[in-house]
Order: sequence, then structure tokens, then C-alpha cells
Amino acid sequence: MSSSRSFATPTFADVQAAALRLHGVALRTPLLENARVNAMLGGRLLLKAECLQRTGSFKLRGAYNFLSQMSTEERGRGAVGWSSGNHAQGLAEAARLMKMKATIVMPADAPALKVANTRASGADIVLYDRVKDSRETIGTDIARRTGATIVPPYDHPWILTGQGTAGLEIVEQAREAGVTLDAVAAPCSGGGLSTGIALAVKGLSPATSVHAGEPAGFDDLACSLAAGSKQTNDKLSGSICDALLAPTPGDVTFPLALRLLGPGLVVSDDEVLDAMELAFREFKLVVEPGGAVALAAALTGKLPVKGRAVAVVCSGGNVDHATFSRALGRRAA
Amino acid sequence: MSSSRSFATPTFADVQAAALRLHGVALRTPLLENARVNAMLGGRLLLKAECLQRTGSFKLRGAYNFLSQMSTEERGRGAVGWSSGNHAQGLAEAARLMKMKATIVMPADAPALKVANTRASGADIVLYDRVKDSRETIGTDIARRTGATIVPPYDHPWILTGQGTAGLEIVEQAREAGVTLDAVAAPCSGGGLSTGIALAVKGLSPATSVHAGEPAGFDDLACSLAAGSKQTNDKLSGSICDALLAPTPGDVTFPLALRLLGPGLVVSDDEVLDAMELAFREFKLVVEPGGAVALAAALTGKLPVKGRAVAVVCSGGNVDHATFSRALGRRAA
Repeated sequence: MSSSRSFATPTFADVQAAALRLHGVALRTPLLENARVNAMLGGRLLLKAECLQRTGSFKLRGAYNFLSQMSTEERGRGAVGWSSGNHAQGLAEAARLMKMKATIVMPADAPALKVANTRASGADIVLYDRVKDSRETIGTDIARRTGATIVPPYDHPWILTGQGTAGLEIVEQAREAGVTLDAVAAPCSGGGLSTGIALAVKGLSPATSVHAGEPAGFDDLACSLAAGSKQTNDKLSGSICDALLAPTPGDVTFPLALRLLGPGLVVSDDEVLDAMELAFREFKLVVEPGGAVALAAALTGKLPVKGRAVAVVCSGGNVDHATFSRALGRRAA
Repeated sequence: MSSSRSFATPTFADVQAAALRLHGVALRTPLLENARVNAMLGGRLLLKAECLQRTGSFKLRGAYNFLSQMSTEERGRGAVGWSSGNHAQGLAEAARLMKMKATIVMPADAPALKVANTRASGADIVLYDRVKDSRETIGTDIARRTGATIVPPYDHPWILTGQGTAGLEIVEQAREAGVTLDAVAAPCSGGGLSTGIALAVKGLSPATSVHAGEPAGFDDLACSLAAGSKQTNDKLSGSICDALLAPTPGDVTFPLALRLLGPGLVVSDDEVLDAMELAFREFKLVVEPGGAVALAAALTGKLPVKGRAVAVVCSGGNVDHATFSRALGRRAA
């Protein structure tokens, strides 16, 4: 299995190499701007719409970058991963594009739509019981039995450098719009997206600060950055941001985070719902709760925009109808 | 006033010239594709996301193309237009970008949000009573008194060739994705968008058919194309597609429509709501009712996708919370 190899610390050049692999595969999602929102904030807010990415989140980038570096022999044995959400869909679709077999271990109580979407990409689905079973044990057992390669959701150089390609695009698209960015922020669960983007942004624009956004109570990275060592969340569930519940930073991602990220940004569920409503009203985008935390930080001033130019990643749009309606209800038109 | 001049029939070269004027002003909105939707339809459906355009609709393209061809002297006297919706916002924002004064005549009962959005671009708003007043009379009077130039919503070469730039992008972006388009469809009210796109598409890809979509009961263009002469709708209101209620094709647009468009596509309000729900679920886009008619035609098979490659324009996203919630209610996740 590839995941048992040792790897050098990922670099800016690795993100550039990932961009070449993803050319024509990942959508170059637009960097949107809105005159009214800018006037309201007194600065320039640029929104990277990764919710428009294939499979509805940035996860395709890392998964495809990973699969495309496996050997022909490894590809023939397939890939296995576990996820109830965006990584499942991204990995399944990346495998379909690479004409590879993928097995995804998903909780039996995962939303039917997410299971159906993952299956629609041709992946085999193995359901497990959240209470009785360990998905890691099931997935590792499948890998051992079949020779399939485990594709982790974030804590791997090939994953995070794939996610980082969104950061290259942000700086390039900002430059095309004549903007030099003061700061970039992205949602964070295990840190694959935020550290990948930091590698990319710091490589192209060293003076730009990069920040990770997290939901209140699940701010393990913010606490870890403040403490200088890995901290763990007290809770395992209880935020509307279902995509951002990783308990602690990754072993590969945290050293990068310590070196490259500014202070963490922490937002409440209500602030996230307000950000989703604004994305609907002003940007015409469907953003899921976990995808909206960086936007929420900018709108609340936790990430200052006044007198500055700031880019935020809206990282996914896989939200159910009821949750989206709840966000719309925060403001009647 | 520019609108009293006579103009040659607009050509493909005029659309190309408009694209140069709009470079760096209009967003090159993405052409999205979804593997699940393609599998469902048995073909390739490409979705041009003009709801992501500045001001939330394609209308900025035509308005900016118009204003940028006025003389310096005319620009100094400003622009005037009437609209309760997307043209108001597009014209107001185009005037702001050109550092021009704009006056928009809007109904006193227009949604507060649309009035506020138009005012936020710096336009002067003149409210009128839908029952007692004529907006044309009010607008024409303002133009006569102030020397301002009337900017019509669709029936002018500078407007329709500006809208046509979306068509150039569609063909270019499809080619970048390796796709030769069998058909392109766009929503239609007075025909500015659909005829502009037809000029562009036929110029780049003569074998591609181009179609205009309309709501049932407001299918004046479809009827006019079938009859070979201008027909008028019986009703003036009563569709969820508030942006598509023009009573009859324009004098400039109809000859182009007769020459360039295939048969019209007519969809029901329920089909439009279903298309909005699919755009939410699969494309993560907020599309307004009038913006979703071409997508609805593709999803219902009125515009066949099976075994073909078809692009549809989702032309706007300026929808209120209640109407969007109604669309979400068509399918619980």
C-alpha cells in the first residue's frame, strides 16, 4: 500500500506538479466578487467557489492527485477509503475517471443521497454500524485482503498538495483581477485543504497570510496552533458543520500548519447559517455548512476585510434541503 | 438619444467587438457539467452559469456594451431605463463601472430588495404606480428633460450583441472540454439573449442549433416562429418566471430569431421549479425561475440530450427566499 511509504515534506513544487496532473480534470472554479458585499465590508472579498467543483467539493483534487501517482500495478488492485461525505464522493469519482475500482466504507446511517451519489460513480459501498464497528478496521482489512491502496481523507502529502491547487488558482485569479491578497482563508477539518492552500499561496505570494476556519467546539487546529502542540476536541459531534469534525490535526498537516498558517478562525453555527444565506442572496451559490466557515469569519470581522483584499474558499455545496431551508430562514427577503 | 439612430443588422463581428469591450468587466462564467446528470439524460449537458455574473444575471453584458459605445458627451448626460428586475440592476451597475449617472424607473411595488440592490449601485430610482402611470412615458420624459440616453432592455443591436458574448464563451468553453455542441438553448423574454447567443454560436459553429425557452402562456416567440410573424401573449402576468413576461418579440430581435433560431421550447411553472431544485442539488447553483427555463426544457426532453451534447444558459439567480424554498420543496432530500 502506498500509504505505508515514507514521504518527504510536501513543497510548493509538489503543488505545481499536482496542478499539471489536474489540468482538464478539476474545474478551475471561479473567484467571485460582489460590489455590494465589498461596500458592506469596506474592502475586497473574493470568494473561491469550490462548491462548483466536480462532486460538489474540493475533495476531487486531492483524491485524483493521489490515484494518478499510484503505479499501474497498484491501480489494478484498486483504492479503498472511508468517509460519510465529500471525500467519499471525490474519491469515487476520481477512481471512475482513472478507470479504477474503488471501495468506500460508509456508515449505515449516512444520508441516502450521499450513499447514492457515491454509488453513482461506480464505487462499491460497504456499510458499517457507527456504534459497533470501526471503519478503519473494516477499510484496513479490505486493503489487506484485496491489495487495494488506502486513500486517506487529508493526512497525506499527495492529498494535501492536490487540495493546494485551489490555492494556486486563487492567487492567479486574484492577479488577473488586479488584486494583491492580504489574506486567504479556508475551512479546516484535518487540515489538508488549509495547509495545501498555504503551501501554494506562500509559494506565490509570501506576504499573504493564510488562515484555517473551524466551527466552535471543533477548533482543534486553532487550539493546537495557539498551544504549539496537537490538541484534541472534547466533542465528536454536535456542529451543523458535518464535514469539519476531525478530532485533531494530522501528523503530516500539523507541522505545515505550524509553519505556514496564521491564527485560527472560529465561528458559531449561527454565523455559518448567516454566511450560507449571504452566499445564496449575493453570490447565487449553494454552500454547505462546513464550506461556509471561512466566509463566516470574513463576514463577522474575525478575518478583517476592511481596507484589505481577502479571499475565502467556499469548499463544498453538499447540503440537504432541510439544512439549506434553515439557512434561508435566517432572513426573509 | 442613441436609441433614435438607425442601425445596421447586428452581425457576428459585432458580438466579437462586444467581447473585447467586456473583457475584464463581465465574468467569464463557468460552463458546468455533472456526471450524474449526464448519466440520467444519456448525453452531455453543459450549463452556462450566468447566475454567477455580476448583478446576478447576464444583463450587465448588454448594458455595459451599450454604455461603452455612447459618446463622451452622451455619457455626461447619463442613462435612463425602466425595469423591475435584472435589467435595472445590470444597467445601474454598468453605469457605476462607467462612472455615469443612471436613472431607473421602477414600479412602487417592486420587491424592496431589488430596489435596494439597484440603488446600491448608485442609480437614482424613480418609482411609479403600475396602475396609474406609464413607465415608458416617465422614462421618455426624463430622457427629453435631461438629455439622458434611453437604454432599452433587449430590442437594440448594442444590447443583444452584448448578451451574445455569453454565446462566444459557451462554444469556446465547450471546445476546451473537447465537446462539439449539437444545440444551445437560452431563456427568452424579448429575445435579446437568445438572438445574441444565436449570432455568436452560428458564427463559430454553424451546425449547432439554437433555441429560445419560454414559460407556458408567455410563449410569444415560439408562436411567432411557428407562424412566421409576430404574435402577442394573451396574458400579461401569471407565471412564476417574472423575468420572461415581455408580450411580443422585439422589432430588432424577431428578424434575427426567424433567421437563426430553431423551434421554441415551452415549459410549465412546475417544470421550472423542478429545474431549480436540480440546479440546487446537482450544480450547487441558485437559479431564478426565468433563468431555469432552458434547463427545464433539457431535463424534460423537450430539448433532447440523449446521445447529444447540449448547452443551456441559466441566465439569472435573483430569486427571493420564499420562491426558492418552494422549489426546494419539490423534492425532500
